Amino acid sequence: MNLILHEYSQSGNCYKIRLTAALLGLPIERREYDIQKGETRTPQFLAEVNPNGRIPVLQIGDRFIPESNAACFYLADGSELVPGDRFDRADMLRWMFFEQYNHEPNVATLRFWLAFVGEERLSDLQRALLPGKREAGEAALRLMEEHLAGRDYFVAGRLSLADIALYAYTHVAQDGGFDLGRYPAIAAWIARVAAGPAYLPMSA
Amino acid sequence: MNLILHEYSQSGNCYKIRLTAALLGLPIERREYDIQKGETRTPQFLAEVNPNGRIPVLQIGDRFIPESNAACFYLADGSELVPGDRFDRADMLRWMFFEQYNHEPNVATLRFWLAFVGEERLSDLQRALLPGKREAGEAALRLMEEHLAGRDYFVAGRLSLADIALYAYTHVAQDGGFDLGRYPAIAAWIARVAAGPAYLPMSA
Repeated sequence: MNLILHEYSQSGNCYKIRLTAALLGLPIERREYDIQKGETRTPQFLAEVNPNGRIPVLQIGDRFIPESNAACFYLADGSELVPGDRFDRADMLRWMFFEQYNHEPNVATLRFWLAFVGEERLSDLQRALLPGKREAGEAALRLMEEHLAGRDYFVAGRLSLADIALYAYTHVAQDGGFDLGRYPAIAAWIARVAAGPAYLPMSA
Repeated sequence: MNLILHEYSQSGNCYKIRLTAALLGLPIERREYDIQKGETRTPQFLAEVNPNGRIPVLQIGDRFIPESNAACFYLADGSELVPGDRFDRADMLRWMFFEQYNHEPNVATLRFWLAFVGEERLSDLQRALLPGKREAGEAALRLMEEHLAGRDYFVAGRLSLADIALYAYTHVAQDGGFDLGRYPAIAAWIARVAAGPAYLPMSA
């Protein structure tokens, strides 16, 4: 089945899907949209790709899966990237939901605001949210650090979608002003993921 | 395996797990924590139940699954509440990630702020966030309404965890000031879910 990724390539959410596909050896066609120019809010995009006006969207033939972690799950379902054990499978999803709820809205949003939008162009409300997002982002990184101390990967001792989902924005967290030097277990895990076979960097 | 739900019973995230267990006929023991009194931030809770300091947490024997949708997935894995088809299974997760990213932080947060905390006790920052959360909550409901027009359930024509995840906070969205009378397809779907066999109300 022909796979097409509708994406903004610098988004970590889109990179997750490219990395999953690379690790599984699946070829994927890429279509780029400039989110800062509103290219995912056009009537055509809303009607044909995603009514939620967001990327990434994975197109499988003529069907579409929005939501980065759901798209990764589609690609990896039945592969070694999804644990075969029932508890481990749910535990993998636990970290993927944590990523979207506690990590991405803070770690990824600060990267976008500071490295892409620019601090001087933030609204007053965004500026007021900075300290809370900084604190919540550090809390998410602390939780990851505690979990990784003594573990090589998030779930069941091996690479899974939990690692891929959390790796995407963590390995570029410096762009949002987070100091990964304060998190040695995370830094070691980042190096471990990047040293794996078939690894694909974000810039590829 | 003995199942224990660590919860705050009025939380929709906790209710999802009770509803999933009820639909599957699984008995579940309940332990209540008052989140407004910080009972999930005690050293004991952080050390023994969830280092993220949040409920719900599903305890399975001596192991723990935080994150409501991951806990529902654990309970329903292999059951008729999780589609057997690969695309449909990913599409179910798509709606569950949408729920945690676009729906819960707006629809559930407004319910908590307005019906539990009280508008007069909100901070200035929370007050400044109200209009954006109202708009994002209405956008999430509009997307659901469009999807449900002409469909009985979110995925594959039958009840799945996607419906349970979205039902929990949608059916009490009035508590957050959302007018469900503006969303007839959602209202019909709510009635459909509540009329199903083994349905358990939130107050049970």
